[in-house]
Amino acid sequence: MDMHQLTRQLQQTNDSKIVLLVADGLGGLPATFDQKTGIVTGPNPGGKTELESARTPNLDALAARGVCGLSTPVAPGITPGSGPGHLGLFGYDPLKYDIGRGVLEALGIDFAVGANDVAIRGNFCSIDSCGNITDRRAGRIPTETCVALCKKLRTVKIPSLEVFIEPVREHRLVIVFRGEGLGDQVDDTDPQAVGVPTLAPVATDAASARTAEVATEFLRQARAILATESPANMVMLRGFAKKPDIAPMKEVYGLDAVALAVYPMYRGLARLVGMRIADAGKSLTDQVAALGREWSAGNFFFIHFKYTDSTGEDGNFAAKVARIEELDAAVPGIVALQPDVLIVSGDHSTPSQMRSHSWHPVPTLIVSNTCRPDSVTSFGESECSRGGLGQFAAKHLLPLALAHAGRLGKYGA
Amino acid sequence: MDMHQLTRQLQQTNDSKIVLLVADGLGGLPATFDQKTGIVTGPNPGGKTELESARTPNLDALAARGVCGLSTPVAPGITPGSGPGHLGLFGYDPLKYDIGRGVLEALGIDFAVGANDVAIRGNFCSIDSCGNITDRRAGRIPTETCVALCKKLRTVKIPSLEVFIEPVREHRLVIVFRGEGLGDQVDDTDPQAVGVPTLAPVATDAASARTAEVATEFLRQARAILATESPANMVMLRGFAKKPDIAPMKEVYGLDAVALAVYPMYRGLARLVGMRIADAGKSLTDQVAALGREWSAGNFFFIHFKYTDSTGEDGNFAAKVARIEELDAAVPGIVALQPDVLIVSGDHSTPSQMRSHSWHPVPTLIVSNTCRPDSVTSFGESECSRGGLGQFAAKHLLPLALAHAGRLGKYGA
Repeated sequence: MDMHQLTRQLQQTNDSKIVLLVADGLGGLPATFDQKTGIVTGPNPGGKTELESARTPNLDALAARGVCGLSTPVAPGITPGSGPGHLGLFGYDPLKYDIGRGVLEALGIDFAVGANDVAIRGNFCSIDSCGNITDRRAGRIPTETCVALCKKLRTVKIPSLEVFIEPVREHRLVIVFRGEGLGDQVDDTDPQAVGVPTLAPVATDAASARTAEVATEFLRQARAILATESPANMVMLRGFAKKPDIAPMKEVYGLDAVALAVYPMYRGLARLVGMRIADAGKSLTDQVAALGREWSAGNFFFIHFKYTDSTGEDGNFAAKVARIEELDAAVPGIVALQPDVLIVSGDHSTPSQMRSHSWHPVPTLIVSNTCRPDSVTSFGESECSRGGLGQFAAKHLLPLALAHAGRLGKYGA
Repeated sequence: MDMHQLTRQLQQTNDSKIVLLVADGLGGLPATFDQKTGIVTGPNPGGKTELESARTPNLDALAARGVCGLSTPVAPGITPGSGPGHLGLFGYDPLKYDIGRGVLEALGIDFAVGANDVAIRGNFCSIDSCGNITDRRAGRIPTETCVALCKKLRTVKIPSLEVFIEPVREHRLVIVFRGEGLGDQVDDTDPQAVGVPTLAPVATDAASARTAEVATEFLRQARAILATESPANMVMLRGFAKKPDIAPMKEVYGLDAVALAVYPMYRGLARLVGMRIADAGKSLTDQVAALGREWSAGNFFFIHFKYTDSTGEDGNFAAKVARIEELDAAVPGIVALQPDVLIVSGDHSTPSQMRSHSWHPVPTLIVSNTCRPDSVTSFGESECSRGGLGQFAAKHLLPLALAHAGRLGKYGA
């Protein structure tokens, strides 16, 4: 019996409310940094992480009241992207559900990928009169040009198929083919080199033959449409992907889940698992206000905070500390709503020392009336490593939340 | 997706060097012991283990710099042999890859078992004129006799098959059948009793029918050859085994792995996962010197230290402590080479109190520039149980090492 079979069987209903507050890239590492810019200058063994350096009275109070631990997003040593990181937190095994590149790109522009869709990342590029690539990014055309060219490409017509063309940024766009019988096992047309022609889209399984045909016809028309453009006179296709066949949270966990996310990518990931997307505004303050408005309209609320990740990726230790303090300041507004279960975690670590996502496990706390107390009184990596939740796979967090919410019955008599 | 699919997909190359220092049977238990002989006299609840009793300034310094934890070789409660213990450390699930007895015995005498080989443990034994066993070990004949008898047995000829006969020690030998179409599901011919005849080799699946035929013919000829010998006038076969179908570390982890082991068994286990076997000399000092010589010729180095296990098996607490101190003294020579990742662990515990391998998790440390600090400042079981790595399955250690070495890309976008 897998965990989803179990939770389908054991789920029960009550009036409880669960809040999952995700600080993207929350976990960190100690580092020395420039006092003026905040930028990391080197590792700092024995020092404090960003979270440990931040002044977080509200998170510390939650840690003291609740139970803490470290969450492993995918597996020890595995650094997750945003997709696998969030799937784990939403209670889905990130090694089982694979979110392809094209789908992730579509999610990132709020495009609702359907079951019959093949989503593709597109690149505008430059080719010479012989058809050889001269610039794989068409000189990174401005986003406005991308928007205009996408509008032109929408004149592509392919029989018995819907084609969606959406600009992303600079030379990047998303193409979606919607129709029956489209597999996603098609090779990229980007040869990852200049001075050679773009590749033909080749299907690597029988179920994707029609997709390759459609892509070939799309590229034929696109090339004609773009022929007189400069520098973006061709398009390349990468990361053909269908959305994974993923049962919604309502079915698997019995939850009416609501997403409060500022960035499209995280709304998209939430939509993948069947969350309702609420208007969350533009800031954490807006998101907490939206939480209040939505409170009676759901029983599970996902709040996403981006900037702990982006400051980590910038390598800015001090800025990440400041963003964590901003997160902390939002906590009272959430607590005031008296959720039955409040979780604070992250989808992965983003140590400013590394300027990237990392595999390090993520500080996590759960507060409810049924928490067994541990000795943790401040929210940080080192304290969490000695917390009552121990080290656990992220995918186990949601069943734990349900249990604390009284939403899971007994297994066996 | 399993972990090896993942690491095949995510592996990336750089100039980093990883050292895995394995102290065989490292973990222990507190015990009282005879001050003169060092031999354990009883348990010592609340006392210190061998590792905690040893003076280990170098290991303690590594523990303080790095991150510690406890490694579970196979699963909680499961005591591993050397095979499963090492497979776990090499990043292979020991419950998936089964190393049969015959193969392990062959590895132990440096016999390179090939893909078409069935390796078998042989015992010289004594039978009476009716063919009934009178001594299952033929009076533990001296090793020289074993060598001489093996030479005689090499006259066995079986059509379209190579037969290898190698002495091990006393009454023990290894027989290897090399040829196409040989399965390894054949029952032992040792009835584990005296006063009864040896058993016929019986195949328990169709693919092993030919192996049983070959073994029957081998035993017929061997009985004739040994007929005039005394006391070793017959041979029994046990542990028929082919080597597991195991992808090399280069393929699975992208590593050029080099083994520096004094004992043949550990060289054999390293060979199984595709390590290159370097000349390691006869002592830990030789091994560290060899590490220096091999430094530019690989990027993963396995150093095996036997005596923490053998002293544990002898029940000699004080001797194990002394061997741990010998291990500690070798650490600076390794650190001087500045590996990017240094791991110290063991393949299992061998508490001198138990005089045997045990299931207890094994103290483990990782040192690199991307370690998240924990509170551990001395290398011992109790401190490691509160370390930042927590308790983890040994098979996860290698992905962690790769992550710390910057050799694993991101999973998903």
